[in-house]
Parts: sequence; C-alpha cells; structure tokens
Amino acid sequence: MSLYAGIEAGGTKFICGVGDSEGNIIDQIQFPTTTPDETMPQVIQFLQQHPDIVAIGFGSFGPICLDKSAKDYGKIMKTPKLAWQYFDVVHYLQQYFPDLPVGFDTDVNAAALGEKTWGAAKGLSDVVYITVGTGIGTGIISNNKMVHGLTHPEAGHIRVMRSEHEIDGFTGICPSHKNCLEGMASGPALNSRWQVPSCSSFPENHIAWEIEADYLAQALVNYILIVSPQKIIFGGGVMKQSQLFPKIHKRVQALLNGYISHPLIEENINQYIVPAALGGNAGLKGSIALALHQKVQACV
Amino acid sequence: MSLYAGIEAGGTKFICGVGDSEGNIIDQIQFPTTTPDETMPQVIQFLQQHPDIVAIGFGSFGPICLDKSAKDYGKIMKTPKLAWQYFDVVHYLQQYFPDLPVGFDTDVNAAALGEKTWGAAKGLSDVVYITVGTGIGTGIISNNKMVHGLTHPEAGHIRVMRSEHEIDGFTGICPSHKNCLEGMASGPALNSRWQVPSCSSFPENHIAWEIEADYLAQALVNYILIVSPQKIIFGGGVMKQSQLFPKIHKRVQALLNGYISHPLIEENINQYIVPAALGGNAGLKGSIALALHQKVQACV
Repeated sequence: MSLYAGIEAGGTKFICGVGDSEGNIIDQIQFPTTTPDETMPQVIQFLQQHPDIVAIGFGSFGPICLDKSAKDYGKIMKTPKLAWQYFDVVHYLQQYFPDLPVGFDTDVNAAALGEKTWGAAKGLSDVVYITVGTGIGTGIISNNKMVHGLTHPEAGHIRVMRSEHEIDGFTGICPSHKNCLEGMASGPALNSRWQVPSCSSFPENHIAWEIEADYLAQALVNYILIVSPQKIIFGGGVMKQSQLFPKIHKRVQALLNGYISHPLIEENINQYIVPAALGGNAGLKGSIALALHQKVQACV
Repeated sequence: MSLYAGIEAGGTKFICGVGDSEGNIIDQIQFPTTTPDETMPQVIQFLQQHPDIVAIGFGSFGPICLDKSAKDYGKIMKTPKLAWQYFDVVHYLQQYFPDLPVGFDTDVNAAALGEKTWGAAKGLSDVVYITVGTGIGTGIISNNKMVHGLTHPEAGHIRVMRSEHEIDGFTGICPSHKNCLEGMASGPALNSRWQVPSCSSFPENHIAWEIEADYLAQALVNYILIVSPQKIIFGGGVMKQSQLFPKIHKRVQALLNGYISHPLIEENINQYIVPAALGGNAGLKGSIALALHQKVQACV
C-alpha cells in the first residue's frame, strides 16, 4: 500500500506521521522544535522507518518561500527563530529521499487542504481555514489551489475595529501591529486583556466571549468579502470554546447586513462557519494531504 | 482575423467593443443602461455587425451568479436595479449566438483579467484590481484564476478603522454598512464628507487626500494579508488624483510595519501599487479578455 508522510512543523513541536490515501494515520511521533541540527535528524529517522512512503508533505511555520521560480523556494525565511532562518527544508529532505516528491506549504494552508481532502470542506473549491491559539493563522484555498501569490496569506494580522465592549486600557499585544486581529483575539491576547493565566475556565456568558466573537466575526466578514469562501473552518485551542460559534454566526450576519445574499449566510450559517472536522489532527493530516497532493492532484 | 467581443455592463452605461487578441479595439459603442428590453437589443445589434467574432465576454455589474453548477448561472441576482434582477445574460446572448462561447464575470474581475492579459499585471498569477469611483469594486485573480467561490469578491465593502484625521460628524454613506471602505472612501463619500459637489479640484495637499489614502491603504493591507497579490492595480475616477499614490505607498508600509518581508513592499512599493495600465479602457478591454479567455486559456 502506498503511504504518505506528513510533517507538521510548529514553532514549539514537530509532529510527524504516516498515513494512507483515506487520511488514516498509521504511525506518528512528536518531539520539540529546537534547532534544525537536532530536530531534522529525528524527522529523517522516523521517515526511514517507513519504506512504503511515496511522497512527503511538510506543513511549516512561517514565513516560508513558496515561489518555485525563486532561489529561496523551500526555505524558511526571516524569522525570530534564528536557528531556522533560511533553513532549506525541501533541499534537506530531498538529500535523504531523492526519489520522493516533497510538498511544502504553510501549516495552515496544509490544514485547509486536509479539511478539503477529508474533512469539513470535502469537495469544495474555495475554503478558509483559521486557527485561533497562540497566534492566529489562516490557510486559504481558492479555485482548488492553495493561495500563495507574493508570499502567502498572513490573514491573522488583518486590521479590526475596536469592539464596543472592549475594556479600557487594552490596546493589543501584536509586536508588529499591536491591535490587529492576532493582537486582539489570540489566546495570549485574551489572557492579557483579562490579566489571567488562562481564560479557558471563564463561564460561557462572560463578556470575554462576546468581545472575542466580535473580533473573529469582523475578520470573517473581511475574508468573505475578499475571497468568498464556500466554507470557513475554525481550528485552534481558543475555538474549543464552542459557545463562540453561535455568537460569531450572529455577529457575521449583523455585520454583513444582508449584503451577501446566499442561503449559507442568511439561513444556514451554522453550516457555513464550522469547527475543523479533523480536530486536533488537522495539521498533521493536512501535511499528509500535502504529500498525497504530490501524487494525486485530484485530491484538491 | 479572429475577433473578440466585450461588453462592459455598468450601472449607468454599457460599453460594447470588438478587439483582437492583442487587445487592440477595432470598434466600440456605448449607450445608457436602462432596461434589458431596451439595452440588450442594442448589444445584439452591435455584435451582429461583426460576423468575425469568435467569442463574447460580458463584464457585469453585480451581484451575479458565477457558479456553473447552479440553476442561476449567468444571471444578474438580487439588485436595486429591479428591471435587471434575475435577468439571464448568458442565456440571452446564447440565443442570438448559439455557436459562440460566452465568458461571464464581474466587471472588476474582467478588468483584473484585462490588466493581467495586456496591462500592468502581464504574466502575473495573483492580482488585485480595485476601482475607486461611484462605488469601490475589486477584481481578484489567484493562481491565474478569477476568484469566485460562494459568490464573488465584494471587497469594496470591507471594514476599515476610522482615520485619525477623520472629520467630526462624518459616519459614512454605505446604505448597507455605513462606514465600510465604500462608505468612507468612494467618490460620493469624499463629496459627502466635505459637503461639496466634487472634491476633484481640492489642492494636492488638502487633508482630504490624507484621509482617502489612509482608508485605501487599510484596505490594501488587508488584501495583501489575505490574498497576497503580486501586484495591486487601481482604476476609477478618484484615482486620477495621482497624489494619492505616494501617500498610499507610505501608509501601506507603515501599517504592515515590516511584517511582509518582500522587496516589492519594502523597497519598490511604487511598482507594487500602481495605476491601471489600460486606463479608462480597463473595463472594456477586460471584457474582451474574458472573451479571449474562452478561446485561449493561456491568456490567464
């Protein structure tokens, strides 16, 4: 049986796995993200245990270079994780597996592809995946292809208007933009606003969730107006707060105010803005989907 | 010689033209947009004068249905122009020209395609075209294809933060969203803010242009972070105020604050955010490009 290897390369941990074309995970392992010299040999060791793999997918923290015509294609670019800056992921993997195709994309584009291949966006051509956790990241598929363009989407950093319920004195925590979406609505932003180690135990009717839903809804409205997704899929730790979903649905409808006339927005918005079907595995399965996509273009 | 027919269907006027594969316009005509019963026969009459046309492109005011699998494909959808609501453009044209393929898209997606085929975005795969005039419309090309998705982009209506220079009492004029981009930065919004029939004679150093540039820059920053275009092209009457460009360049850089590390943004932004190369013909040439695209997929 042909197997597909996926590597979900996050800022704090790597998750490597091997799966089949149906998205079933056969084996997986995880280890901390330290330096390429330490971390990458562990990746190679895991992959070498699986001689049946026919392709590799690497879903990476960013920024990365996705322009196949550029000399930097396949590299991690300018990043605060200095040990990884300009590390050539694709070339490194190809040295060990010269016969295998390597798919390379952002972790969030990979997650979007995973949801499109096996999850909540199966069969759709236009999808936004947004993860809300330590940061806010967004993977986007348009016309069946992952959006790259000049670099790749960084839609967690779009501008949002201050919520009418915002508490005095909180001005956002993004080091680059202060009060962008990530600065106002990531997990650390939530905790910083309320000056607690974690908001996760706040009751469902706490105003914290109204504010959070407002910022996320603002972002979704802009995504809808710009890329017109057929579905929006949420991942990430903050979205385990399931009370956020109905609040976001209502707020998106209020902000669009009937402007986009479509039953999925006006009537069935709970089927339009949904949690990730692949749950915590969206990242790893997405990387495996990246590998599958090297062999079977039809998967996207 | 094979000729391509384009129809730029605007809210106030129709412009019909016939051109060659290089984008040269051979013949053109325009007439007011009244009702389908009056306007469409004029279109047919013009087209019938050109027996050499091999394809038709129709760039339409919106909203329109672009989903080829939907029963409403090819129609103008719910619109305040009631005579046009649910008018089936594609079917109408096919009745008269059953042997010709008909390309159908938004006027702004067509303009983006025109700029990609013959203009400022020649050879690029990821492009945003934004026109700032009576309204604000946006055409988007991602991975060489016009973005459709659930409906089509309506990125003139994204949310923007109130400019720090905004004048007291002005709250925006969009009937649906009041203070969205179009509500704050369209031509009529400018005139309403300053309570004049037209701002076009305001001096270059008038604060009006700082405010305008701020809103447009905010929108561009969100477009960049979401769809990562390789070039952003401005059309529309308001953008004839060429002093806006350097202000927008500077403001986009300030708002991104180094987050997207790319020479086109950090060093050569005047080559990244540019006026339409096809000028006032972007809409008509775009519709002709839509026709060409039916025959030569390579044009996108």
